[in-house]
Amino acid sequence: MKAAVVPSVNGKWEVKQWETPKAGPNQVVIKIHASGLCYTDVHITHGALPTTFPRVLGHEPVGEIVEVGPAVTSRKIGDRVGVPWHQQGDRTCEWCLRGMKERCLNPVVTGLGMQGSHAEYMLAYADATMPLPGALSYEQAAPIFCAGYTVWSGLRMADPKPHERIAVVGIGGLGHLALQYSKAAGFDTIAVTKSQDKEKSIREMGADEIVEDGEKLLAAGGADVLLATSNSWAATADAAKGMRPDGRIVLMGVGGEAFGYAAELMFKRVRLIGSLQNGPEYLYEALDIAAKGKVKVIEETYKLDEIGKAYDRVAEGKVRYRAVITMN
Amino acid sequence: MKAAVVPSVNGKWEVKQWETPKAGPNQVVIKIHASGLCYTDVHITHGALPTTFPRVLGHEPVGEIVEVGPAVTSRKIGDRVGVPWHQQGDRTCEWCLRGMKERCLNPVVTGLGMQGSHAEYMLAYADATMPLPGALSYEQAAPIFCAGYTVWSGLRMADPKPHERIAVVGIGGLGHLALQYSKAAGFDTIAVTKSQDKEKSIREMGADEIVEDGEKLLAAGGADVLLATSNSWAATADAAKGMRPDGRIVLMGVGGEAFGYAAELMFKRVRLIGSLQNGPEYLYEALDIAAKGKVKVIEETYKLDEIGKAYDRVAEGKVRYRAVITMN
Amino acid sequence: MKAAVVPSVNGKWEVKQWETPKAGPNQVVIKIHASGLCYTDVHITHGALPTTFPRVLGHEPVGEIVEVGPAVTSRKIGDRVGVPWHQQGDRTCEWCLRGMKERCLNPVVTGLGMQGSHAEYMLAYADATMPLPGALSYEQAAPIFCAGYTVWSGLRMADPKPHERIAVVGIGGLGHLALQYSKAAGFDTIAVTKSQDKEKSIREMGADEIVEDGEKLLAAGGADVLLATSNSWAATADAAKGMRPDGRIVLMGVGGEAFGYAAELMFKRVRLIGSLQNGPEYLYEALDIAAKGKVKVIEETYKLDEIGKAYDRVAEGKVRYRAVITMN
Amino acid sequence: MKAAVVPSVNGKWEVKQWETPKAGPNQVVIKIHASGLCYTDVHITHGALPTTFPRVLGHEPVGEIVEVGPAVTSRKIGDRVGVPWHQQGDRTCEWCLRGMKERCLNPVVTGLGMQGSHAEYMLAYADATMPLPGALSYEQAAPIFCAGYTVWSGLRMADPKPHERIAVVGIGGLGHLALQYSKAAGFDTIAVTKSQDKEKSIREMGADEIVEDGEKLLAAGGADVLLATSNSWAATADAAKGMRPDGRIVLMGVGGEAFGYAAELMFKRVRLIGSLQNGPEYLYEALDIAAKGKVKVIEETYKLDEIGKAYDRVAEGKVRYRAVITMN
Repeated sequence: MKAAVVPSVNGKWEVKQWETPKAGPNQVVIKIHASGLCYTDVHITHGALPTTFPRVLGHEPVGEIVEVGPAVTSRKIGDRVGVPWHQQGDRTCEWCLRGMKERCLNPVVTGLGMQGSHAEYMLAYADATMPLPGALSYEQAAPIFCAGYTVWSGLRMADPKPHERIAVVGIGGLGHLALQYSKAAGFDTIAVTKSQDKEKSIREMGADEIVEDGEKLLAAGGADVLLATSNSWAATADAAKGMRPDGRIVLMGVGGEAFGYAAELMFKRVRLIGSLQNGPEYLYEALDIAAKGKVKVIEETYKLDEIGKAYDRVAEGKVRYRAVITMN
Repeated sequence: MKAAVVPSVNGKWEVKQWETPKAGPNQVVIKIHASGLCYTDVHITHGALPTTFPRVLGHEPVGEIVEVGPAVTSRKIGDRVGVPWHQQGDRTCEWCLRGMKERCLNPVVTGLGMQGSHAEYMLAYADATMPLPGALSYEQAAPIFCAGYTVWSGLRMADPKPHERIAVVGIGGLGHLALQYSKAAGFDTIAVTKSQDKEKSIREMGADEIVEDGEKLLAAGGADVLLATSNSWAATADAAKGMRPDGRIVLMGVGGEAFGYAAELMFKRVRLIGSLQNGPEYLYEALDIAAKGKVKVIEETYKLDEIGKAYDRVAEGKVRYRAVITMN
Repeated sequence: MKAAVVPSVNGKWEVKQWETPKAGPNQVVIKIHASGLCYTDVHITHGALPTTFPRVLGHEPVGEIVEVGPAVTSRKIGDRVGVPWHQQGDRTCEWCLRGMKERCLNPVVTGLGMQGSHAEYMLAYADATMPLPGALSYEQAAPIFCAGYTVWSGLRMADPKPHERIAVVGIGGLGHLALQYSKAAGFDTIAVTKSQDKEKSIREMGADEIVEDGEKLLAAGGADVLLATSNSWAATADAAKGMRPDGRIVLMGVGGEAFGYAAELMFKRVRLIGSLQNGPEYLYEALDIAAKGKVKVIEETYKLDEIGKAYDRVAEGKVRYRAVITMN
Repeated sequence: MKAAVVPSVNGKWEVKQWETPKAGPNQVVIKIHASGLCYTDVHITHGALPTTFPRVLGHEPVGEIVEVGPAVTSRKIGDRVGVPWHQQGDRTCEWCLRGMKERCLNPVVTGLGMQGSHAEYMLAYADATMPLPGALSYEQAAPIFCAGYTVWSGLRMADPKPHERIAVVGIGGLGHLALQYSKAAGFDTIAVTKSQDKEKSIREMGADEIVEDGEKLLAAGGADVLLATSNSWAATADAAKGMRPDGRIVLMGVGGEAFGYAAELMFKRVRLIGSLQNGPEYLYEALDIAAKGKVKVIEETYKLDEIGKAYDRVAEGKVRYRAVITMN
């Protein structure tokens, strides 16, 4: 099959022939129809996550099951499915025994321990696949498996209550979905951004207000929840000035910088919450909301042969919202 | 192998030869060391749950893995494990996709859809087995897989807060564990019972107080949480008179009778909560607490050949706390 | 001043002269502009709540402060305010000391221990008054102080999560607001009613679906939360057949009948929650939502002199949604 | 009356004559029996909080009511009471209207806006006083009104679940109470400290384990909740290495330094929670637990005339756990 291969750390992506996978026990082979290109692929290429090379990346895979391995009973050929980052835990640690495989510290991960989705076919554990609901298109579905899953997990982890106000800082690949998910869930939603050229599309996404920074956020009534999808801590810390008492700041996209002062959290009883993808129930819901048309991924699509160009645009921060690779 | 077989609805239990199971894909065979005898076995014998006969009952199994089937990677021969009632969901319904297999409406159940544990050997899905922690004995472990799991699930579902008071009504197989789990978790715990002959053992279990009924419970300060393990609704409804504002009554053992008046719930903002076994994390914790010696099952043990006598005593309500069958 | 007076239990309401109140310490006098007529006024007239006669009823008061008593610092003449049912606790019980005066069992209640609002003027404790936000009209504001406060308290007590589905059974005075509050908070909302003649107005209130009964509710996907505003337990119990696993049924309007079977709650882990008006934060939010125009009380208005006619229509169940008395 | 007076910023404390207060409307005068000396008094003396001088500090007051002002109905002469830091909100802001006066940003504070408790008599708002339960002595009660209230608020804010493990970092005035409150609530509790000379008393307080740092904490099984009472961020950040997944770090005593790296929070889904004194229900509970003898303040007591010496020892960090001033 054809696949996009990263030959070595910091190597240049190449589209070339790669061995087509075969389904082992409890596994399926998926014919990939769309595969989102997440900035994490850039981090992995730079060696920031533990893996080996050459490697096929990609962890927003959707497609059709074309082969089922021995002992698979829950999925069948022809099923339209996607696969998240975290496929399976080690099944023996405390967290796996508790039924919380997404807390496992030794997981099997799409595109790290297993081959990724920037390819014509991909292997997955049958029970890690999630069926695509309704008529959700492959192109729209792919980014829900990482970006959408992440932001909906974060929103749900903040446990927002009816009548609360949600702000989103960083309106990019994650943020433009966070904003739409917040609106889909019925919350007054404020975008915090300095990018004036995004204003029109942010309005179309449904933002009730757009403010420049935390001070303006506070002046506009403040936020009970801040979904921090920006990878700039400076932007996040500034936006945090707009928190209301008992507010919650959910960190999903922030890099490794230091983040602030304890007294500020204490004074308003604010919480800083670390969040990843927090369990299949949030993926299930994120897909359902997208299938109902309440959230639209804004994307640039590329053929697999053009993935090098797509990668460069992602790495250079030129992709406004999301790049998706299609295979046909 | 030898097994206790119920030949037909309302039939007399017989210990006889039965085909020894073989492990299929993802399955293991467990050499049973101890098997708790729950009142639900009486209900099943009377035809109250959907199953077919002849059937080997028993859903509190613990023992040692002696065979692993194809594709099993998470358990190995020699592992000391137990198995709960709910082994596996259908893996395709909403609740299975959400990762909440215990909410699945088409589950594979120990002793209903699969052979039960009143036998020398039992088949189980590898990922449904739960390793026994530490030096917890087989006899002590068995009743945790249904009775202990149920009451700890209920206690956790009430979401009791530090400083709250917990009452337990019905101090039998479930109740004597509920009382000890509540104490192990640090709560002031009040037993509600009219059985004066149990008073000494209830004190030994750690109860802070023993009261006769709901009125006396209220006089003693009331309860924020009532763990209703009695199968008498009359006893439960009476105990409920002792609820404090915002109290929660967790129903775990109550039969099918009608249960009360809406106005009483509204007036104190009380909640009636239906609870079963609510997920593997509670089984994990229940076992851990027992392994630390904080909860002791009080039991009568019988050899497999004596199971007819044990069954009769359970059916007649003569077993004070729990009957356990041992195989060696 | 003029006031509507109930001379005795089951007596006929009369509009007559009554002594105009004077503000004592920490009290204010409110010139009433609008006063909602709740079915509870019928219950009180029939002697169902502890009070004495002759009495001026009415516990949905809004108006303007015209006098402030000694030691009042938080309100001033001219303030537009309303007053809820529960004005003040006894300030010495556990619940008052905990800061939860609405849990106090010896409260000072508008229209029971104090004169009610079907009059030209009314006395209230200054700190029990709640300012009316924005441009919310007196007529729209009055029913929020009991009906709106009750249903928003109940919705919040169910702790609905984003993506959950809410059903409302009983689309009357409380229910028509419950439905709109649920929509205002962003939830898919289903009305359960057999009143076909209300269908058009229920659609206008924003219901996503209308179903006849619990079976149809289940067929339509079921509900995670059921707001039970009906005073018929039969209707509530029937609607409850449409609950999803882990569902919550909030009882706000149900009379004193028996309510069901424990096994049904346990099987799906459903909760029955008793709810009243649960604290000022919910009144604050309910008013804010109404002030933003997201909830509209559908009402019949009457002059104080016509209150007898209004009362008869309420008592006979002829008022479709809410009757409000205006004073000018 | 005699009072300890701080004449000016950074001035030397003097015991001298001061005008005895008179109760205004809704106020009471308390004859002080004991008054805790909190490190915050040092901060205020150094000008770190907004107030004016000369000033009588002290915000852990307990004593007996000797005068009640006009309109006071909830307290009477002879009542044994204490008063927390936050006496009253402005009663007009959103948070006061919501019934959450402790969130008010313009509060009336003991020892800042009002005279403090290092004196023979003190004024307080009647409804801000909290009766002392049972036979709790004045000396034991005083530090509960700030130190105890703070740590119990923080423990409750972490919402610890049964079976979770709590660690306390910083075993001083706050920490020695945090540790005891955690044990009183039934949690396995680990002290994180490098002070080997405290080991014996920490064991006596009930700690299940004592570890030196975060790495040792992790090796010992980790913590689900970390109560950070240390005012060293370095110590807190180090202890945080011992967090388990989904852990919560409650900040109560930490100074203004920077606090870490986002990635660490995200990786384990850990939360940093800012906490103060979070509402009267936690003060109520903290007092009740102390009254039951489950928590013992370890204290040095000084007569009012010796307060200068007590202050110096607090300022120099020489008081091991808590200094309390007694008036008789």
